[in-house]
Amino acid sequence: MNDVVTPAISIRPALKDDAKEIIRLIVELADFEKLDPPDEDARRRLIEDAFGPDPPFRVLLAELGGKAVGYAFYLFTYSSFHAKKTLYLEDIYISADHRRHGIGKIFMEKLKEIAKENDCHRMEWVVLDWNQNAIDFYEKLGARHLNEWKTYRLIIGGRSEH
Amino acid sequence: MNDVVTPAISIRPALKDDAKEIIRLIVELADFEKLDPPDEDARRRLIEDAFGPDPPFRVLLAELGGKAVGYAFYLFTYSSFHAKKTLYLEDIYISADHRRHGIGKIFMEKLKEIAKENDCHRMEWVVLDWNQNAIDFYEKLGARHLNEWKTYRLIIGGRSEH
Repeated sequence: MNDVVTPAISIRPALKDDAKEIIRLIVELADFEKLDPPDEDARRRLIEDAFGPDPPFRVLLAELGGKAVGYAFYLFTYSSFHAKKTLYLEDIYISADHRRHGIGKIFMEKLKEIAKENDCHRMEWVVLDWNQNAIDFYEKLGARHLNEWKTYRLIIGGRSEH
Repeated sequence: MNDVVTPAISIRPALKDDAKEIIRLIVELADFEKLDPPDEDARRRLIEDAFGPDPPFRVLLAELGGKAVGYAFYLFTYSSFHAKKTLYLEDIYISADHRRHGIGKIFMEKLKEIAKENDCHRMEWVVLDWNQNAIDFYEKLGARHLNEWKTYRLIIGGRSEH
């Protein structure tokens, strides 16, 4: 018998009122990934874009007992050969204290559902090569590393590369 | 002195009337990439999607003396850390007979212009690891291989992987 009450995990689309929590989590993610977090201007634009009239991406929030503990940003790309949309996962993040409780799996299941509803052929995302925990998690889900494809990036306007 | 008249290269957004040429070129690309070309259903969907009310991608056509010799499909993704759109190049292709005449460079310049107009921070695309000509071309343009990021793909609905 186990008397511990586990608070329920819920995943829901984020609202503009969640802006502070989203920013808190994205800064945590940047810190975890050892990348520069969005600066003040970028934070403002991010929220304006996410909750504006024609959002270029969608936000899901994971809550544990009412507290935001993770988020995902996604959007749709397109496979020309399959002539079907792809759900592209721009970010997925779960706060360090809340990992290994199945939240990532629930998140990915929710995203798969959204991909199905939108008649996508597949989901895609990128992961940093040193993030072995994430890689193991993705491989356990049945995802495949596209090692025959190289990603190229060109910065517009000569700004520094990221 | 050189009396040979070089037909002008033009790049323009494709129209529904270009459907046959687009399909011809995409089948050539699949053949070049040793990948399965879109089947009949996918070809129909591709054209419907490209020229429907809310197209998930845009098509540019390169013409040489009025003949379609290349195409590009692009769409917009989003960088959460920069809070700016990314121009994502889904396909770029130039017919074998018309390579090494600068069409690729003109195409990339046009795409950079479009990226700037749309206030993008960057352009991204993928290339097959054996396509050294393309890789050399991209590196000469100043693009960088994101070798620290691995791309993962999950097929929805258990279909075979591509």
